[in-house]
Amino acid sequence: MSAWVLPDHIADILPSEARHMEELRRSLLDVAATYGYELVIPPLMEYLESLLTGTGQALDLQTFKTVDQLSGRTVGIRADSTQQVARIDAHLLNRAGVARLCYCGPVLHTMPERPYASREPLQFGAEIYGHDGLEADLEALSLALDCLRKAAVSNPMVVMGDVRIARSLMGGVMVGMDTLRAVHAALAAKDASTLAQLTETFPAASREGLMALLDLYGGPEVLEAARARLAHFPQALKVLGELEWIGARMGTDAAVGYDLADLQGYAYYSGLRFTMYADRCTDALVRGGRYDEVGAAFGRNRPAAGFSLDIKQLVSVAAQRPLQAAIRAPWSEDGALGALIRSLRQAGETVICALPGHASEVDEFLCDRELVHEDGNWRVHPLQAHSQ
Amino acid sequence: MSAWVLPDHIADILPSEARHMEELRRSLLDVAATYGYELVIPPLMEYLESLLTGTGQALDLQTFKTVDQLSGRTVGIRADSTQQVARIDAHLLNRAGVARLCYCGPVLHTMPERPYASREPLQFGAEIYGHDGLEADLEALSLALDCLRKAAVSNPMVVMGDVRIARSLMGGVMVGMDTLRAVHAALAAKDASTLAQLTETFPAASREGLMALLDLYGGPEVLEAARARLAHFPQALKVLGELEWIGARMGTDAAVGYDLADLQGYAYYSGLRFTMYADRCTDALVRGGRYDEVGAAFGRNRPAAGFSLDIKQLVSVAAQRPLQAAIRAPWSEDGALGALIRSLRQAGETVICALPGHASEVDEFLCDRELVHEDGNWRVHPLQAHSQ
Repeated sequence: MSAWVLPDHIADILPSEARHMEELRRSLLDVAATYGYELVIPPLMEYLESLLTGTGQALDLQTFKTVDQLSGRTVGIRADSTQQVARIDAHLLNRAGVARLCYCGPVLHTMPERPYASREPLQFGAEIYGHDGLEADLEALSLALDCLRKAAVSNPMVVMGDVRIARSLMGGVMVGMDTLRAVHAALAAKDASTLAQLTETFPAASREGLMALLDLYGGPEVLEAARARLAHFPQALKVLGELEWIGARMGTDAAVGYDLADLQGYAYYSGLRFTMYADRCTDALVRGGRYDEVGAAFGRNRPAAGFSLDIKQLVSVAAQRPLQAAIRAPWSEDGALGALIRSLRQAGETVICALPGHASEVDEFLCDRELVHEDGNWRVHPLQAHSQ
Repeated sequence: MSAWVLPDHIADILPSEARHMEELRRSLLDVAATYGYELVIPPLMEYLESLLTGTGQALDLQTFKTVDQLSGRTVGIRADSTQQVARIDAHLLNRAGVARLCYCGPVLHTMPERPYASREPLQFGAEIYGHDGLEADLEALSLALDCLRKAAVSNPMVVMGDVRIARSLMGGVMVGMDTLRAVHAALAAKDASTLAQLTETFPAASREGLMALLDLYGGPEVLEAARARLAHFPQALKVLGELEWIGARMGTDAAVGYDLADLQGYAYYSGLRFTMYADRCTDALVRGGRYDEVGAAFGRNRPAAGFSLDIKQLVSVAAQRPLQAAIRAPWSEDGALGALIRSLRQAGETVICALPGHASEVDEFLCDRELVHEDGNWRVHPLQAHSQ
């Protein structure tokens, strides 16, 4: 096999897309900074136990493993950074009050998450620790939405759910873990016949409630319908009130929807969970919510809410700014030219030197001006039409 | 062992240092962009053969290996990106003329490169392909120096050498690869007694030339001394002329030195090699030079020069800008406050909301202003002295 063949779902990012990804990376980190989220950089590699501990167990099959020759222990390449940032909050920062952290870096997956997904997402995320009120959920949602706005995606849409609704419907029902997982999977797949079969032996109220969840998706009217159909479950009603509270504060420039059966990441989330979509995007761009147990494995079980997204996925639906055109310079040892090039570069201009023998090769599409020697001085001229 | 323990030479980067690293990352990429270097993002993981092919073989022991379950083949986590960028130039871009590429991303090493080095350097580098004249070497040097200037390191110093000098001294000497390697190691370590022993059977001129290299380090006067002592080797004299040409064009705001025995990375470089140092830095910050064979493994053997540096090393000697102070806001559902916060954030200000019950917890050291409700309007006030 040729040396330039890459593994499946692994790709080089070439200049135009790389530039766009770098712009997005900066924009997202800058938006998070204006909310007071501080950047942290967790490592690519950790002992496997640390990566998979607690709520990280679901990541086992997604994590590349190898041996650390310094310790002889098994290490993993991170498949997700959420767990790492929780470790930083719990152990390294250990602040008494609210901590806001964000991160941006590559992760590796053994298998692609979607048919065309990269196995090396560039994960950006933000987390708020230490506040169990809805204000933290709302802040995470607002920040995620502002990130999509900053990336200029068109028609962002927020879909919310809450794992506590399904939990409350199954409260007191005696089922094993296998059945529980099958129920979650049937709900997530909106598979009514499987769900009916699985819940045959459940109490009637639980069964009807779970079956009702299958229809409870759509706009704000879903909450009213849910109140009627889940009236016997006070905890579910309380959660519906919380969803309404958040929905009412989401502003008007993003559509808000609900999907009460969407239980992806059930084991991970402990309350609100949300996904965000946009035009031209078949899968969720942003996933987030509340995962209060995330720090427990590191000895600090405190409230946490946040979200993450893959910049490699976002780049395909975000609008790109045009490249700033460059200035072409001839190769010359003239000190005046060198000084001019330097000052232009310091002012942020791109100045490309045509090296000797390559004058005709510069990618002209990038350049709209050139440096010309005229009356004893170097000047910036528009590029001649014939050379454009 | 506790879940928060990290492998040796692997560390989390906490907010203050992470912010500085992100600033450096942006500055370096922006400087490279003003020279016309286009960003590419090669993958973290490749088939091992691709990572180690050609000049990458020296990286074998530094590369973490694992199995790709999609293909059943051995993959490596990159220990260096130079090879990857050469692959992109050779195979993906395949431009006829000069190509300028830069990159910035983490690499992983099985062993630390220096006693206190991270095993996860954040490698930044730039490469110029397609020009075999000294102008390309000079451009790489100038760009590297501008990067250090932009990072505000104090007293950058450039040290140049050229592997072709030692090569020309040993031209026609019949020695095995083992002896050759031992000679290079003795030169690099400036180990005169070992070198004398190894070269005992060499022709007298070669031997004297090699022994002379041990003394040939220092300022520009080294070139004159070298001309006298290596007078029998026309190829070495030609190379000395090239070093002089480059040194004369390096400008006056960096010290330029020479070390003709420094052969680190001998197998890799094909001509000029340079290192850059700065105050408070015991090891080289930047390593670069010419490696014309780098693309051969990918079917495109063309001239290449460039350099790389580790931002994690650079951050320890670069001057950091102070953090812009933030504005503290109370939690409120007042729409006017929300609009003001939004406009302040859009203007680049950091506005930290004190969530209900956490008003006294905001890290005051970050905030120098607060939003206050006064006469029916929200206003930005300096923070009261007692709360600072």
